[in-house]
Amino acid sequence: MTSEHRVAVSGGTHGNEMSGIYLAKHWLRNPMELRRGSFAVTPFLGNPRAIEKCVRYVGRDLNRTFTTEFLSSAEAEDKPYEVVRAREINQTYGPKGSAQAFDFMFDLHNTTANMGACLIVDSEESLLPMHMCHYIQVGPAPDLSTRPALGQGPLRSAGEALELGPQPQQVVRADLFTQMRDLMACALDFIELFNKGTVFPAFEIEAYKITGRMDYPRYPDGEISAMVHPKLQDKDFLPMNPGDPIFQTFSGEEILYEGDTTIYPAFINEAAYYEKKVAFAKMEKHMFSIPGLQRE
Amino acid sequence: MTSEHRVAVSGGTHGNEMSGIYLAKHWLRNPMELRRGSFAVTPFLGNPRAIEKCVRYVGRDLNRTFTTEFLSSAEAEDKPYEVVRAREINQTYGPKGSAQAFDFMFDLHNTTANMGACLIVDSEESLLPMHMCHYIQVGPAPDLSTRPALGQGPLRSAGEALELGPQPQQVVRADLFTQMRDLMACALDFIELFNKGTVFPAFEIEAYKITGRMDYPRYPDGEISAMVHPKLQDKDFLPMNPGDPIFQTFSGEEILYEGDTTIYPAFINEAAYYEKKVAFAKMEKHMFSIPGLQRE
Repeated sequence: MTSEHRVAVSGGTHGNEMSGIYLAKHWLRNPMELRRGSFAVTPFLGNPRAIEKCVRYVGRDLNRTFTTEFLSSAEAEDKPYEVVRAREINQTYGPKGSAQAFDFMFDLHNTTANMGACLIVDSEESLLPMHMCHYIQVGPAPDLSTRPALGQGPLRSAGEALELGPQPQQVVRADLFTQMRDLMACALDFIELFNKGTVFPAFEIEAYKITGRMDYPRYPDGEISAMVHPKLQDKDFLPMNPGDPIFQTFSGEEILYEGDTTIYPAFINEAAYYEKKVAFAKMEKHMFSIPGLQRE
Repeated sequence: MTSEHRVAVSGGTHGNEMSGIYLAKHWLRNPMELRRGSFAVTPFLGNPRAIEKCVRYVGRDLNRTFTTEFLSSAEAEDKPYEVVRAREINQTYGPKGSAQAFDFMFDLHNTTANMGACLIVDSEESLLPMHMCHYIQVGPAPDLSTRPALGQGPLRSAGEALELGPQPQQVVRADLFTQMRDLMACALDFIELFNKGTVFPAFEIEAYKITGRMDYPRYPDGEISAMVHPKLQDKDFLPMNPGDPIFQTFSGEEILYEGDTTIYPAFINEAAYYEKKVAFAKMEKHMFSIPGLQRE
């Protein structure tokens, strides 16, 4: 793996997730904050039209649009704005995996779920982001941490998604803004060390693997009939065992988890996932042995 | 004051405030829950088009549209949907103050601010809602409470607004859903007692009076340049003294409160108020002596 010289960071892939939006705007006014000795970072706004309106998207979810289907389909005037924007981003910072692509791209997100910080990584074989998580976990700022979550699948975005929550949509909380900025600073310090040839030894790390999604219970007419159970609310990444209460109907009845193994839910009661019919993402927890890393 | 026989409750005046929306939908399926011996309550959805899209409003804020200007202006095809809807609501449940108007109307809201429960009341002279707050504060459910906030002013809605927070927009939390349902049950029990001739003695009560609004600091181009200070975040209804930190710029500098008296902020960092240029509402805290109440 060679040095990472061309690094970008996107805020506002979703136009109502404010930590990344105000951070990107701040960095556009103060680019020196993103400089390191061996590289500088290019900040940009992911979805300017959605940011302008303070909505997740205007036509379709940009974060579901970086697929071959959308990036390569024939030009057409009736395409949603986000298809056009995904192509622009792909042309400027990608194409993914190509020689002219940026070496690393951060994609800053918020969730209304109580997930803390979480870096969504393709797989445990993505050595650089796995080492980045480990560096932040054991690194120089003891109060900073970020969990690795593996397997973007259809969630795949333009870059490595850094999720931070809980924060309501359309709101910027100073504590989370500072936390995201500190996480980014720590991540850039890690890349700087990597570029300078630092040897990062092998380690073991806990990571969560997305295995599925759970929809809300529904009335026959399709309307949701139950809420996330109060005992599950805010319990992201904690074990969910067979028989645990997971939903509460609007009339007050409990609905229990009928799976046959322990899982670790995340994105619990995420605002944007109601329309996607996801009450929470199902995750498995695994330990991974990550080999050492050094620049070639 | 005569009996209150015609009572209505609106959920979803704002289409992304989910406690009231799911409560109203629940009551439309289960109307018996709103029955008392002397009256029944008519539930309805305030802004169905905004609820459908899960946004605050589609054309203009319905909760700023119940003014003589909008209710009485000439018919015109180019009116925003909410002007048409405000007239429908006014014709069905009003007109306010008229003989055919409903006796009492609840308007259920959520806020992203940490305000707990708060009933927005015209003034301390509105005896029935002031007694309702007191009944809930000292009443049969010791864990339930609601603060009275006086002076809707331009915030004026179709009914008495019950605010409950914190809850992100587009999210229904089971704990807040249950709390709002219990508050409504308690409020209806109070009306039932009133209708049956119960004598409610005089009392003293603390209430908050809205006196103004505070905008975010801004760059010369109009963009906000600072966030609610972490020491102010979530501190609704607590004293703000001259010199207290109230904002933190994106670069990290503190901005202090320059007023010359103690105030009690509320709606701190409410998501929907960014567009209204309101970082928080300024409130004064007063004690009021409320006279006794009995049905005529």
